[in-house]
Amino acid sequence: MEAYLDNSATTRCSRRVQETVLRMMDCDYGNPSSLHKKGMEAEAHVRKAAAEIARTLRVSEKEIIFTSGGTESNNLALIGAAMANRRSGNRLITTQVEHSSVRNTMAYLEKQGFEVIYLPVDKDGILLLDSLREAVNGQTVLVSIMQANNETGALQPVAEAASIVRQINPAALVHADAVQSYGKMRIRPKKEGIDLLSVSGHKIHGPKGVGFLYIREKTKITPLSFGGGQQSGMRSGTHNVPGIAGLGEAAKEAYEGLEEKTAHLYSLKDRFLEKTACLEGVTVNGRTGRDSAPHIVSLSIEGVRSEVLLHALEEYNIYVSAGSACASNHRAPSQTLQAMKLKPELADSTLRFSFSVYTAAEEIDYAAAKLAEIVPRLRRYVRR
Amino acid sequence: MEAYLDNSATTRCSRRVQETVLRMMDCDYGNPSSLHKKGMEAEAHVRKAAAEIARTLRVSEKEIIFTSGGTESNNLALIGAAMANRRSGNRLITTQVEHSSVRNTMAYLEKQGFEVIYLPVDKDGILLLDSLREAVNGQTVLVSIMQANNETGALQPVAEAASIVRQINPAALVHADAVQSYGKMRIRPKKEGIDLLSVSGHKIHGPKGVGFLYIREKTKITPLSFGGGQQSGMRSGTHNVPGIAGLGEAAKEAYEGLEEKTAHLYSLKDRFLEKTACLEGVTVNGRTGRDSAPHIVSLSIEGVRSEVLLHALEEYNIYVSAGSACASNHRAPSQTLQAMKLKPELADSTLRFSFSVYTAAEEIDYAAAKLAEIVPRLRRYVRR
Repeated sequence: MEAYLDNSATTRCSRRVQETVLRMMDCDYGNPSSLHKKGMEAEAHVRKAAAEIARTLRVSEKEIIFTSGGTESNNLALIGAAMANRRSGNRLITTQVEHSSVRNTMAYLEKQGFEVIYLPVDKDGILLLDSLREAVNGQTVLVSIMQANNETGALQPVAEAASIVRQINPAALVHADAVQSYGKMRIRPKKEGIDLLSVSGHKIHGPKGVGFLYIREKTKITPLSFGGGQQSGMRSGTHNVPGIAGLGEAAKEAYEGLEEKTAHLYSLKDRFLEKTACLEGVTVNGRTGRDSAPHIVSLSIEGVRSEVLLHALEEYNIYVSAGSACASNHRAPSQTLQAMKLKPELADSTLRFSFSVYTAAEEIDYAAAKLAEIVPRLRRYVRR
Repeated sequence: MEAYLDNSATTRCSRRVQETVLRMMDCDYGNPSSLHKKGMEAEAHVRKAAAEIARTLRVSEKEIIFTSGGTESNNLALIGAAMANRRSGNRLITTQVEHSSVRNTMAYLEKQGFEVIYLPVDKDGILLLDSLREAVNGQTVLVSIMQANNETGALQPVAEAASIVRQINPAALVHADAVQSYGKMRIRPKKEGIDLLSVSGHKIHGPKGVGFLYIREKTKITPLSFGGGQQSGMRSGTHNVPGIAGLGEAAKEAYEGLEEKTAHLYSLKDRFLEKTACLEGVTVNGRTGRDSAPHIVSLSIEGVRSEVLLHALEEYNIYVSAGSACASNHRAPSQTLQAMKLKPELADSTLRFSFSVYTAAEEIDYAAAKLAEIVPRLRRYVRR
């Protein structure tokens, strides 16, 4: 038995995505910038993907810029918006529970002379809107908020936040890091007041190395790199046609029967929590109901270091994450859990279990049973 | 019959590359940043690719940074080196015949306050080394030269240039844009004095959306984007494992039996030139012997606009490029041909034919025959 419960780190490409990518590598391999038929065909695939993605967000396909993934999307959104709107102000606002591709990009922008405010969260990791209200001023250029937290699945009130921002400063831009939320919930940037929205392909059974940034029409943003002027000059370089077409397919697939899919994910989450939250010395971090992301569970397991438990589970082909996998083998206390005021010893004993639509109930049962079996054993070792 | 003679725009993925990419999407889909077995396996594929590429250049695998393609590699090399070494000087040097991802990045750096010198070329598009000698001074931070020109196949004397740079200013960095040369000739960065070298996957039958930058150990360079700190912090973001593994496979394949492969390419080139250079009103741009790239032929065809001829050839399933495809459907006189002092009416009548190891002699014959047939016909139309 195998249980891959690390779907927030990355997912397996779906069958349809695989077939699409393969077809682009083998048959429709033209360069969209070429003027001949093979170029036009390739360009049509790029347009089709943009249209498919735009449809899932109810935006225009011209507002979709393809990137190499979530990190590039976040960098383009933050640096691009900050640099383009430098004259309107100097303040950037984000939260204390962001992904490193937002946090470290904000740190870079601080070095470039911007003032960055990191908003606190409550014990469930939810942004305190009052602190946002206090932080937004006339100098605010951009507010960046992660829609679903990658470590805990906490859902942020992005629409309410955007509305607060608009009330105080209508010129300030709102960016949503939707890498963990896209494909898991309906997102309507226009309605929710989101100007910029980052998505990654490989979190939704699409290809690695591709993502997109939604840029609301007329949003001022500067490119990060320069070249042939592809994608209206916003992102130069030969289009990654197989990746883009694969991403389009993955987006379409994710939103087909979304309600049944999220119901399945929530049932997996409930099932897993039912069997694990009751274990001795186990606490659940953040909310767990329909007001949390459907695919992420964060557990702190007293008395067992997360890495030890991670490797013990691995022995049984159960794959999970210690905190978040996105920190590149880099061991550091989770800033998200710190911001939630989790005790340091619990933060060090935290595992993330993340599911996908392809996860079977048996995998959940297997992982929960092994967890119940292993944890007491590991605790005995520690006590000796 | 079909003749895809636009391999400098992009190539079809080789069978082995396709299989590798597919395997990574389907089986080895882990995130290299994950601590468990699936992560370790994915990381091993990334390391293997780096080792394979390093072997082709006789460099260390630690000196290979994976990017999303040639444009990102060139941007990282130029912006990264310029910004990191700003204190050592203000001068950047390049040539008048660079790809837009170098030319436009240099233009960006000019706006950032750098002085950029664009060196002239001779009628064959070859860099005039005397002009380089005059341009390099104590303030020079970086010299960037394209190894094989994408429009004409002109080979630049990169090693000689690097040696001149070193004599005058040992601290100045040398960047080679090897997007069109890698996989077509042996390159030894250490021996040739190259500090930075850009390569793209999809020009060598590898995947689109992936490339690499060789960064000589101890070269000071700043990253362009920020996040999880992957690739020693030089390029954050989840590794594009399928793309990287595919690129490693493509690199290995390209250098297997390189001598036979280039011999085949030169024989195609000779064969094509034999049948076309003699046509009335046809001139060959640049050199054509073993001192030119084996896979590119640039022809100016008097009295016929390149776009018209391109589309006429397309009717016969012959795919070529007007100048270079990399300019994203963007019609502008070729700066490369201008720098070679080609008459404007000839520059507007120039086609690029580019071959690959998979190009058959029959394709060459077919394309040459159709060209001979179509050109006089089109000229008659124009005269009317």
